[in-house]
Amino acid sequence: MKAFRRVVICGVGLIGGSFALALKQKGLAEEIVGLGRTQATLQRAKELKIIDSIAQDWADALAGADLVLLAMPVGQTAAALQAMKPHLGPGTLVTDAGSTKRDVIEAIYTHLQEHLTQIVPAHPIAGAEHSGPDAARADLCVGRKVVLTPLEENSPEAIARVSAAWAATGGVLHIMSPQEHDRVFAAVSHLPHLLAYALVHDVAGRANAEQLFSFAASGFRDFTRIASSHPEMWRDICVSNRHAILAELDAYLTELAWVRALLVQGDGESLETLFDEARNARNAWLAGQFNA
Amino acid sequence: MKAFRRVVICGVGLIGGSFALALKQKGLAEEIVGLGRTQATLQRAKELKIIDSIAQDWADALAGADLVLLAMPVGQTAAALQAMKPHLGPGTLVTDAGSTKRDVIEAIYTHLQEHLTQIVPAHPIAGAEHSGPDAARADLCVGRKVVLTPLEENSPEAIARVSAAWAATGGVLHIMSPQEHDRVFAAVSHLPHLLAYALVHDVAGRANAEQLFSFAASGFRDFTRIASSHPEMWRDICVSNRHAILAELDAYLTELAWVRALLVQGDGESLETLFDEARNARNAWLAGQFNA
Repeated sequence: MKAFRRVVICGVGLIGGSFALALKQKGLAEEIVGLGRTQATLQRAKELKIIDSIAQDWADALAGADLVLLAMPVGQTAAALQAMKPHLGPGTLVTDAGSTKRDVIEAIYTHLQEHLTQIVPAHPIAGAEHSGPDAARADLCVGRKVVLTPLEENSPEAIARVSAAWAATGGVLHIMSPQEHDRVFAAVSHLPHLLAYALVHDVAGRANAEQLFSFAASGFRDFTRIASSHPEMWRDICVSNRHAILAELDAYLTELAWVRALLVQGDGESLETLFDEARNARNAWLAGQFNA
Repeated sequence: MKAFRRVVICGVGLIGGSFALALKQKGLAEEIVGLGRTQATLQRAKELKIIDSIAQDWADALAGADLVLLAMPVGQTAAALQAMKPHLGPGTLVTDAGSTKRDVIEAIYTHLQEHLTQIVPAHPIAGAEHSGPDAARADLCVGRKVVLTPLEENSPEAIARVSAAWAATGGVLHIMSPQEHDRVFAAVSHLPHLLAYALVHDVAGRANAEQLFSFAASGFRDFTRIASSHPEMWRDICVSNRHAILAELDAYLTELAWVRALLVQGDGESLETLFDEARNARNAWLAGQFNA
């Protein structure tokens, strides 16, 4: 018998689709049911054999389900939890893939407080600038970190079974508090996305934007790769986690104020020291040897 | 007979080395002589057959030379021009590969004003985060833009022969004024480098830097790739072109002030519009279809 008889994926894009494909490939799910806002996306996911069938609504989806993955943009979490509530039985585990965790957990406590044993929040660190079911791959999470932020109320069995599902994606599991999670990803993920979007937006708004883009090369391309990410998903992340992101943005603005002063002064020596320290830190990180 | 009998490369790193390899591969140079600050680098370039021999000084290097490429960090340009002056004959063409052009041209007018017909400044848009002779490749410039910023005093023959040398690297030639060059590259190259260095430096200085780096993923890696660039080279670019870079940095800080206000207000709609416009502009650029 397979670990999960019926798995529901709400949001069959990059993350939801990849989770589904991994579970299928590992033989962990007998049946995978898709649910979402857009019929065309669900149809496409079915064509790609990411899901076996399309549920009409939560009542339909949750009948006999033993695992649900919420993989929509985080701004839709509260509405999805509310819609699930009347149909969620005690035997159905729930996890999510949201890039922010405090807001998701707040919504869980607000809308599903009678189900706290069975809902184990998660975040696979496996973004890509492509989105939608066509971008899904069974190996998306292989070797990537998957952060779990379990609730105090979670049953040990729920944690174990949800962990097993995420482990089946090939991800490396880490447990963190939601506060720590949101602070860490504000720094190393959310802020860089915001900076990349802002740079492209700045350049695109210039009178000579066409000329500027025509001379932009590989450095610009890689720096701005994440500015091709899903706008709605990043809107929700920025709104949900704005306090932590503002703290990171302000720290960065302080750094830029210092860099600006060095430029004004033409202080090449200090600039070189800064560049050298940054390069050394980055290279040590890539070599797996960063020690603060 | 080959187009160039004796080519001198001052600075046998990524750019100088790649130029030398391309000229050799195309059969344009009979002999390539290297010159530079660091004997070990020159020896390595000779081992890699990037250069045929090592010159002891400019007197030695320039004897019988018909083309010189200056490919050191731009901060060394003025000193190199001064050192060349006593030994530079009228039959030797000079070009450079500096990432900034106004300062290089100012140094040319200051130090070599009797040789303005024969010095044709250039900038191949072919950076990489790796540097040194081991990173050099004959095809580095293939399909990349090479910007020429000729002097009014350049002879047509000098422009034609220097253009032919750069064309042999596979680069696509463009002519610009040095002012325009420096403004364009401040926006699409110099500023992004500064922003990437600043972000890594900011993260590396945190008390929890090790934790932050441990959760940094592919988005952070690509965003910061250019922060592994050559610190001295980028020090010189930032100091040389600081006025144009400051103008770009200030425009970007204005953009960030706006983004910050949207975050404070939790204005998801405006954030999504900004992200959407940025993504569309970037994707249009990648598809070669950007139209402002």
